[in-house]
Amino acid sequence: MTTHHFVPSAWHNVIGTLPAALTIQSGDVVITETLDAAGFDKANTRQKPGPNPMNGPISVAGAEPGDSLRVDILRMTPNRAHGWTRAALAANVVDPESVRDLPPRDAANWHIDLEGHTVTLAPPVPGLEHLVLPLDPMIGCFGVAPPLGQAFSTATSAENGGNMDYRGCRPGASLWFPVAVPGALFFVGDCHAIQGDGEIVGTGVETSFELELRLTVDKALKVTWPRGENADSIFTIGNARPLDQALQHATSEMLSWLITSYGLSRVAASHLMGQVVRYEVGNVFDPAYTMVCRIEKKWLPHRRG
Amino acid sequence: MTTHHFVPSAWHNVIGTLPAALTIQSGDVVITETLDAAGFDKANTRQKPGPNPMNGPISVAGAEPGDSLRVDILRMTPNRAHGWTRAALAANVVDPESVRDLPPRDAANWHIDLEGHTVTLAPPVPGLEHLVLPLDPMIGCFGVAPPLGQAFSTATSAENGGNMDYRGCRPGASLWFPVAVPGALFFVGDCHAIQGDGEIVGTGVETSFELELRLTVDKALKVTWPRGENADSIFTIGNARPLDQALQHATSEMLSWLITSYGLSRVAASHLMGQVVRYEVGNVFDPAYTMVCRIEKKWLPHRRG
Amino acid sequence: MTTHHFVPSAWHNVIGTLPAALTIQSGDVVITETLDAAGFDKANTRQKPGPNPMNGPISVAGAEPGDSLRVDILRMTPNRAHGWTRAALAANVVDPESVRDLPPRDAANWHIDLEGHTVTLAPPVPGLEHLVLPLDPMIGCFGVAPPLGQAFSTATSAENGGNMDYRGCRPGASLWFPVAVPGALFFVGDCHAIQGDGEIVGTGVETSFELELRLTVDKALKVTWPRGENADSIFTIGNARPLDQALQHATSEMLSWLITSYGLSRVAASHLMGQVVRYEVGNVFDPAYTMVCRIEKKWLPHRRG
Amino acid sequence: MTTHHFVPSAWHNVIGTLPAALTIQSGDVVITETLDAAGFDKANTRQKPGPNPMNGPISVAGAEPGDSLRVDILRMTPNRAHGWTRAALAANVVDPESVRDLPPRDAANWHIDLEGHTVTLAPPVPGLEHLVLPLDPMIGCFGVAPPLGQAFSTATSAENGGNMDYRGCRPGASLWFPVAVPGALFFVGDCHAIQGDGEIVGTGVETSFELELRLTVDKALKVTWPRGENADSIFTIGNARPLDQALQHATSEMLSWLITSYGLSRVAASHLMGQVVRYEVGNVFDPAYTMVCRIEKKWLPHRRG
Repeated sequence: MTTHHFVPSAWHNVIGTLPAALTIQSGDVVITETLDAAGFDKANTRQKPGPNPMNGPISVAGAEPGDSLRVDILRMTPNRAHGWTRAALAANVVDPESVRDLPPRDAANWHIDLEGHTVTLAPPVPGLEHLVLPLDPMIGCFGVAPPLGQAFSTATSAENGGNMDYRGCRPGASLWFPVAVPGALFFVGDCHAIQGDGEIVGTGVETSFELELRLTVDKALKVTWPRGENADSIFTIGNARPLDQALQHATSEMLSWLITSYGLSRVAASHLMGQVVRYEVGNVFDPAYTMVCRIEKKWLPHRRG
Repeated sequence: MTTHHFVPSAWHNVIGTLPAALTIQSGDVVITETLDAAGFDKANTRQKPGPNPMNGPISVAGAEPGDSLRVDILRMTPNRAHGWTRAALAANVVDPESVRDLPPRDAANWHIDLEGHTVTLAPPVPGLEHLVLPLDPMIGCFGVAPPLGQAFSTATSAENGGNMDYRGCRPGASLWFPVAVPGALFFVGDCHAIQGDGEIVGTGVETSFELELRLTVDKALKVTWPRGENADSIFTIGNARPLDQALQHATSEMLSWLITSYGLSRVAASHLMGQVVRYEVGNVFDPAYTMVCRIEKKWLPHRRG
Repeated sequence: MTTHHFVPSAWHNVIGTLPAALTIQSGDVVITETLDAAGFDKANTRQKPGPNPMNGPISVAGAEPGDSLRVDILRMTPNRAHGWTRAALAANVVDPESVRDLPPRDAANWHIDLEGHTVTLAPPVPGLEHLVLPLDPMIGCFGVAPPLGQAFSTATSAENGGNMDYRGCRPGASLWFPVAVPGALFFVGDCHAIQGDGEIVGTGVETSFELELRLTVDKALKVTWPRGENADSIFTIGNARPLDQALQHATSEMLSWLITSYGLSRVAASHLMGQVVRYEVGNVFDPAYTMVCRIEKKWLPHRRG
Repeated sequence: MTTHHFVPSAWHNVIGTLPAALTIQSGDVVITETLDAAGFDKANTRQKPGPNPMNGPISVAGAEPGDSLRVDILRMTPNRAHGWTRAALAANVVDPESVRDLPPRDAANWHIDLEGHTVTLAPPVPGLEHLVLPLDPMIGCFGVAPPLGQAFSTATSAENGGNMDYRGCRPGASLWFPVAVPGALFFVGDCHAIQGDGEIVGTGVETSFELELRLTVDKALKVTWPRGENADSIFTIGNARPLDQALQHATSEMLSWLITSYGLSRVAASHLMGQVVRYEVGNVFDPAYTMVCRIEKKWLPHRRG
């Protein structure tokens, strides 16, 4: 296993079949610094316009269409003492007539205490002087090249991952993406110091990070939509609009997983899911919304595959 | 404060303006036994066909249109050693083409260990022999009469509450419903021994319960959609399809609450919600879906109203 | 066959199981004057607040649950020289962020030339001085009592009809509604001098009318959703949100009709529908949206049932 | 003006920034033969797998980002005596539970009478022996390269056009697409001998065609979503899910058009649209659905821009 220090010289606003910026072996670790959602680096220099400039693509030797790419999020270290958000709820998350009353979508600045691991509005906003949030890093946008030569804006998401803005994509989690092209072509960026469910102001606390990730080709697990695992749970991710459809994708993917890897019948899987499933909301701001279907491992039968 | 033992002689499949079965004072406690979703009581006698026969309505003296009815869920005691579920995921929660492969929507039986506080499939289903779930009681359907003389099936939900199937409606929680008619006219039933998010098999573990509830007229808090509170959090509930719209209702209701009761500006409320909101899914089975917007109290400013 | 001149003394804002204001025989004709959507009559006197006060209910002798009520729209005569609309697109029919730029939802006045059969803004709005619209009467809201003792606001629609705002509900059309209670209990009101698809300003040109309708119990045709027929076409109506679901209801209802009344197999019905179906949009303003699935009669096989 | 006979040697399953296969001047005419949706040509030889292989891209000299590409559909001549469809309604256009009863998605063959201009099932399907449909050619999928280096599958659609399956894209119509890259990069294919609204079996009658199109750079008209015009009407096209959102895009685009080109205020545009708009449904089968907002020219003020 090798650890690669990947310093990009270019960034991308799409996830697609682009020339690899780095090629690694399956199981290698990559350490890399990401830009914020608007393309500013740790020195606050704009390296690339948004949306969500990506590091990559990283080609993983041996990955073939039909495989999965497993991504272990080993570490996320913010490397800048400030981040930014929008100062108004997005128009699409409130009742339509009430959009007339929303404030302008101004930017706001946040202080990130890199030692104290806290995140605070700077300057404070009246009424929120008390608000000291914990640093809670997560990856907003990552994934692999989609099939057919498609290339998707990093403002959206699909079967191949992308801008899902799910808080569960944090250190300690592993994700599986469906490989569609040789080498998988992995992209990553758009990390947040903290974010509420839904990314309902259109941002988390957007800042630059140093990431440490392990990328592994998984030839056994076949996935249609992104799947994930952490210490406690397994989960599946659906990306679509409306949220109902994202939920259908995530639910169908979980059903498949329980049948294929845990040997359950459709009836048994229905019983299990019906009584223990948890749904979590990724973003409800982007062109595709994100819904997560999660099951705690303590409820699962022994895994067979 | 009086405690009423309310023994219904009739049950209702709608929530609407019906003659009060019981009239109480604001702050009184009601103890009552509910039927399961199909109308069977603790002796497994069918008292009323479904959907979700309701106890009530209970009129609370002094409740006037524009007030809120606060419902404290003090205790939920299952009073029958068995419950039932459906044995297949609902057609509307999986990818449309995959509906062809779903099993039949048969009923399944569950054993409820009233002493041990566990819930198990009886007989076990192959692959789930290990599955011992905790008893985790919740109210599936409750609410107050809607305005205009409307009456809604207990299979659905709206501003007045109804069949929301939100796991957070459990002992220790308080809910506020918008009073639309004198006396509020409160209905309750359809309790579950346990249920996963979304009620995606179309049921939780459906059984009969003894409930202990306190009903209080709140003349200060004006609500459009149901609101709630528990030891840790406040939350708002939106009911609609698609889930996107339910989310809009819950989000707008939370925005109003933060402005009105916590004195936040729209900008401050946006900042707070954007970084700390949690969304939770009630049912995604019924004609109206349910989305909950929740904020932990530790993030809130001091409440002013 | 009798012709009844029905002069209501009360109007209703819900469609539900209310005491019959008139009882007729199947096949009888009813002539009645309707209020506009805000409850103003032909003398511009407000008889009842909105939404959409209904004449009725009219009980039709012999109608039983499971039957259909056929409504022939024989004549619609506007009886007031003015109508009104809203002056802004509804917030829910434009892109969410653009709601900020919408004008206020003021009321606007229209002149109805009862002789010339035209409809014009009065006073004219700059840029639309040329606009002389034809009088094109339609019924916005009508239907029968829903099952279970439910009662629905006349602002919305469901299986039982209601506020569908479909332009095809005009003189010469016949509609079938699913009878859920003895007598069917028919309600009607909210007629428009003209209206675009979708009722996207939230109104057509709202005015008072004299209607002539024939109500007939149809014991042969079983319907789940409203169906209709005119000289050229048959059609089915779905009411729900999102529009996708309304379309599913209308499409499934048409599939059933082709199988049951025209003897087609599912494959044959799929072929026919796939190549000749026309969809038309009722309202996309109300809590439930309306989608119509229409087939020209010239494509249909001989009707068997 | 030059007429180009464009004979592709390669076809594409995405619409994106690919090397131009042909470069023409603005206003030139292109005659080209398209494959059917599955990639079969007029000799029934499969030249390329689906979905919807595209001819192109054609670069139009002088087209710059921000311009529009005007496409005049001058002629569509089917060049094969047979086409094909699917034999079952798509799962997503019927009520979810009823999907269980749908027939398999088999292919069916249709005879195209190139002289008689008719389309018939071959062999006939029982119950539809009478069905002789008119030849009614339309383009299912066409558009221009999207911005940012994105590339979209020809199974879907977006601001740049794509697989919209709108019957109005027929001879005599002109479409405008938003140019995002130099040369516009126009793609076309997937033509239908006839198709019902919604493409609800997932296909029209899929066959090969000879097309004659004129491509013109329009530097005056700025469009966000595709717009169109025919002898009688102007129209705008929104592509998204749910259909509600597609309708929002089409409606907002029409509002912009009326303001910009016809000099109407938002109030005047609301009045006009509210009473005369017609909505038409493109496909409701693909990942993005298509809704068209149409206004007859007779209602429009004199065009200023």
